[in-house]
Amino acid sequence: MKHLFSVCCSLFITTLLFAQDGHELWLRSSKSQPVNIVCSKKTPTLSVAMDELRRGWQGKSGATITLTITKEKALKYDGFKLSENAVQANNDKGILYGVYELLRRQQTGENITSEVNNPSYETRILNHWDNPDGSVERGYAGHSIFWRKDEAFTVTSQDKKLWQEYARANASVGINGTVLNNVNAAPQILNADYLNRVKVIAEILRPYGMKVYLSVKFSSPALLGKLKTSDPLDPEVIAWWKAKIKEIYSIVPDFGGLLVKASSEGQPGPQDFGRTHADGANMLADALKPYGGIVMWRAFVYSPNDKDRAKQAYNEFMPLDGQFRDNVIIQVKNGPIDFQPREPFSPLFGAMKNTSVMPEFQITQEYLGHATHLVFLAPMWEECLQSDTYQKGEGSTVARCTDGSIYQQNHTAIAGVANIGLDANWCGHHFAQANWYAFGRLAWNVNLKSEQIAEEWLRLTFYNDSSARTGSSDYNASWTNDFLKPVKQMMLDSREAAVNYMTPLGLHHIMSANEHYGPGPWWAPKGMRADWTPPYYHQASVIGIGFDRTTKGSDAVEQYHQPLASQFNDPATCPEKFLLWFHHLPWNYTMKSGRTLWDELCYDYDKGVQQVRSFQKTWDKVQPYVDSTRFTAVQRSLRSQCQNAILWKDACLLYFQQFSRMPIPYALERPVNNLDEIIKNDSRRTAE
Amino acid sequence: MKHLFSVCCSLFITTLLFAQDGHELWLRSSKSQPVNIVCSKKTPTLSVAMDELRRGWQGKSGATITLTITKEKALKYDGFKLSENAVQANNDKGILYGVYELLRRQQTGENITSEVNNPSYETRILNHWDNPDGSVERGYAGHSIFWRKDEAFTVTSQDKKLWQEYARANASVGINGTVLNNVNAAPQILNADYLNRVKVIAEILRPYGMKVYLSVKFSSPALLGKLKTSDPLDPEVIAWWKAKIKEIYSIVPDFGGLLVKASSEGQPGPQDFGRTHADGANMLADALKPYGGIVMWRAFVYSPNDKDRAKQAYNEFMPLDGQFRDNVIIQVKNGPIDFQPREPFSPLFGAMKNTSVMPEFQITQEYLGHATHLVFLAPMWEECLQSDTYQKGEGSTVARCTDGSIYQQNHTAIAGVANIGLDANWCGHHFAQANWYAFGRLAWNVNLKSEQIAEEWLRLTFYNDSSARTGSSDYNASWTNDFLKPVKQMMLDSREAAVNYMTPLGLHHIMSANEHYGPGPWWAPKGMRADWTPPYYHQASVIGIGFDRTTKGSDAVEQYHQPLASQFNDPATCPEKFLLWFHHLPWNYTMKSGRTLWDELCYDYDKGVQQVRSFQKTWDKVQPYVDSTRFTAVQRSLRSQCQNAILWKDACLLYFQQFSRMPIPYALERPVNNLDEIIKNDSRRTAE
Repeated sequence: MKHLFSVCCSLFITTLLFAQDGHELWLRSSKSQPVNIVCSKKTPTLSVAMDELRRGWQGKSGATITLTITKEKALKYDGFKLSENAVQANNDKGILYGVYELLRRQQTGENITSEVNNPSYETRILNHWDNPDGSVERGYAGHSIFWRKDEAFTVTSQDKKLWQEYARANASVGINGTVLNNVNAAPQILNADYLNRVKVIAEILRPYGMKVYLSVKFSSPALLGKLKTSDPLDPEVIAWWKAKIKEIYSIVPDFGGLLVKASSEGQPGPQDFGRTHADGANMLADALKPYGGIVMWRAFVYSPNDKDRAKQAYNEFMPLDGQFRDNVIIQVKNGPIDFQPREPFSPLFGAMKNTSVMPEFQITQEYLGHATHLVFLAPMWEECLQSDTYQKGEGSTVARCTDGSIYQQNHTAIAGVANIGLDANWCGHHFAQANWYAFGRLAWNVNLKSEQIAEEWLRLTFYNDSSARTGSSDYNASWTNDFLKPVKQMMLDSREAAVNYMTPLGLHHIMSANEHYGPGPWWAPKGMRADWTPPYYHQASVIGIGFDRTTKGSDAVEQYHQPLASQFNDPATCPEKFLLWFHHLPWNYTMKSGRTLWDELCYDYDKGVQQVRSFQKTWDKVQPYVDSTRFTAVQRSLRSQCQNAILWKDACLLYFQQFSRMPIPYALERPVNNLDEIIKNDSRRTAE
Repeated sequence: MKHLFSVCCSLFITTLLFAQDGHELWLRSSKSQPVNIVCSKKTPTLSVAMDELRRGWQGKSGATITLTITKEKALKYDGFKLSENAVQANNDKGILYGVYELLRRQQTGENITSEVNNPSYETRILNHWDNPDGSVERGYAGHSIFWRKDEAFTVTSQDKKLWQEYARANASVGINGTVLNNVNAAPQILNADYLNRVKVIAEILRPYGMKVYLSVKFSSPALLGKLKTSDPLDPEVIAWWKAKIKEIYSIVPDFGGLLVKASSEGQPGPQDFGRTHADGANMLADALKPYGGIVMWRAFVYSPNDKDRAKQAYNEFMPLDGQFRDNVIIQVKNGPIDFQPREPFSPLFGAMKNTSVMPEFQITQEYLGHATHLVFLAPMWEECLQSDTYQKGEGSTVARCTDGSIYQQNHTAIAGVANIGLDANWCGHHFAQANWYAFGRLAWNVNLKSEQIAEEWLRLTFYNDSSARTGSSDYNASWTNDFLKPVKQMMLDSREAAVNYMTPLGLHHIMSANEHYGPGPWWAPKGMRADWTPPYYHQASVIGIGFDRTTKGSDAVEQYHQPLASQFNDPATCPEKFLLWFHHLPWNYTMKSGRTLWDELCYDYDKGVQQVRSFQKTWDKVQPYVDSTRFTAVQRSLRSQCQNAILWKDACLLYFQQFSRMPIPYALERPVNNLDEIIKNDSRRTAE
């Protein structure tokens, strides 16, 4: 009876927790203490900093805090130094970031140390794949917060409020730039109507230290300027871009620069005119240079004819190393294919020694369950950033090869493809907010641990409930034990779970066509270019499974520095998480566990499902600590995630079993779906 | 490697097994030995018996077998005496049944003893709920084998072949009668066109010892004869029925009799004219009497107004006990409601001491997963038949109260609602054939154990593959250990599993509206008669759950003989499997396990799902022993069954949780469906 009573009480308490739509993100208003602020300068950014201090001060009541702008060599970019009662920086942005850090530490109860706190990258930028009609490519959280179809150029007070909230959220985690439109760029974004809207956005973002950037279509001179060509070496084209960029800066004086997806997936590029990526990027860079703007030129390129898509970015860009202007940064996705649940790092990292290179991560979960699956991405990014490229000896991690530690880069940057839309909670899934948060935190400090980020985010996002604020130290202890610990563990395990139930052992690109949500290892319509079809990637046959990228295969291993090339080349030394990325192996290949490859695959898929089930248990148990709105939303998503995980497992195992011709180990739960029906439903859905 | 090799071989062997569509049922042709038959008489039935011997003799090659018809007192009805080389009976039907028994024992390897083998019931009859348009009410195996819409009265050679196969299958398990049309009877079944088709059917069934019967609509005199009334005491009505029955017997001289569903679920009956069930039944019985026909009068009656539907059959029929003619049998469903996964036995069994009473079982799985779920029903029927009514002291089982052991009945009978249709495998699900088989076997020997029936059926149905027949004794041993044992256990557990995932602890009638497949505990449209809605039966509220049928409630317990009435009346002594049938209890009521009622409910639902998962494992493991057609069909059904079991669990637990307000124990797997979506999908589907 006692147990029952306490359970009832718990459930009862839950319903009293104030309903939370999640719009406040990790910036949940909390009771603040009076504070005195001493600041000798006055800028809009300093005003924001002071407002934030008044709004969120949780230090000693009536304390005095001093904000000091003074040049100090140890401080880089927008770095700062912190003490309990002072923030010091080289500029007002540094002060603002220092204030957010101070307030975060007050709220999470972390020590406030006096160390220098510099950002890892100069530019920490979001890429919005938002189209002028308001749709968001690979967006799962509603329409664009920047663009809309109807009343496209009216700026409402609601727009401004939202953009300010957006700016504040970004600033609070150190994000200082944003590309406002899709890399698959509509040319009209450069028209005056759009640029005027960009101007308003920039004005609202500016006090928060954020610069705006635009994606441009390389053929804009022809499409928009009615020129005969968009050849980057054509004087008229050069003139057109110069004029356009001048126009942009006349409207947005601190405009950040341009992002370009060229000669990729049907987008035009310099190759259309017999020019190189360098020709194209440098032409734009020259036009931007006078204003301090940069060009972020994407290395995401592949042609339908190559034998191994994974090799192409390297093959196209390495010959151009050293040929780019110093305000060009080559933007490289974390892996060589495309934001898969797991990829080895792109071999371009560290290899381009005379060119600025920036990592591009995907915050929106295009291949990781959209806004339905709970997948905390920090471990994936950490895995990439801490990968050792060996390009300048041991310790040449992707992080150190891009943040200026190893190579002299005039500019350093890191980009994240945003998961933000008009949904009340911004990101569709409440836990997807953690990925926005994590991207900002890692961009600031590339060496932060996923666990630290998860804990910070949970403390900021889920502790600050009304019931919690009235709570005793008993409540704090039980919150830490019964909520924080298990939920943090769930977050930390979530990406590996997704890998397990989607693409274990180095499998990749076996998702359902186009929608990139469910499984689709069978998808290969007649006439479709092979490198868009899963069989190209998994190569499953009665002989075995996996893409042979060894020296005897496509030789993609050769793009990696030793000892990696040799390590990846040998199945005995290749990490098993990358095994089928680099190797085509027989179904009965013996794994380190002693199991056959087929059995291991079955166990991994099964484990993924079991992990999601364990997440469901974890979440259901924490009901007493979460407001009902967010509790129910996450609970429902986890249910869908579990169903989808089972679908992935059933589809992939039943599909591959046609080739392995081996039974799913009988210790494992059996499929509940039939392959033919999964395929039928999938093709019906994707045809809609 | 060795293990792998053997697995590969196993899978390979499977594909060699001859594809089986299941049409042969348990009568799978097998190599026979030459046999000499001595038989002094000649009848069509004896010819069938001799044909069967020649076709299936597996005794000594060239042995001589003697078939002897001679009156012996120890032999009842169509009973027989068997030895290895002789069958003796009172009539040719007994010889036929003896031959089938002999052949079965040869095939299964059972001893052939010389005991008397008498049927438990005189009439062992199937009820087909087949409509003249060829549809089958609650049929899940295709259209009617007897009726069709187009070319309705053409008898094809295909029809005749099928009817003969049907007759043979029934005879092989002792079924000697069949009602050719739905109890919700269309009046036109008594028209000449239909009767002429009945004549052909009867002719084909006759040599196999089967009589045909018809369901009639009580208002036929008015509807068909254009009389002003169908009042059973009206002389014109009596004359009409007499004439009609005379006509029937002129067409089918050995016509068995009539089945009547009267004054039930909208069907007309004697009450419409102020008469009693006895008035109605007796009028028909008098007309049938000269021809030796019987009336099977269903006790399945309930009005929308009664406080407890479970009590009504008893209340309506008990006052009429002793008033029925001796060729009337009251046909009583096993439980007081309606073929639910579990019900206590109907209190009419044993209580009607001066009236012939026959049990009605449902072979078709209306409430037990249709032709999708693998549910072996013998344990359910065994549970009912062996229930002690105590009506004539301890040991007054339902079986003994209906088979003539305790009460003097002029006629004894048992009916099963058929699961037969035009599907190649007759029953939709290959394992549903076992229920047809089991019904026949139990009707013949009411004391047979489910295990014995399952083993017989498996040996007859799954052993006799081409690969098996070439098999060594090694094969026999592994077949017994690796196929027979686990699959038999799966069958024996399957009904309890269905109870667990559908209606544990005495819950009943909480299925989806109309279709009676999925869960629907919420279903209660405005204006719907209460006793057709699940909330009437589960009575769930924040206070508790269950139907109070105690002396403080509807007092249905009073319809049971002591000590049952007291036992059922007290939750402490009421079997927990009937707990919520008889009691409304608080959610925190303590069960014998020590768990709360709510937790126990959760554990039971979960157990049901786990059981289905274990069936899937069992079945997948026996793949080497089963032809691919049947293996795949059963494998696919089990997958659907598992999904449906999960849906039942999720729907019921999430629905009831709204009242219990208690968490599903965290040790248990969480729901993957959302209640609102289940309800929405259900109402969309049932509205279609």
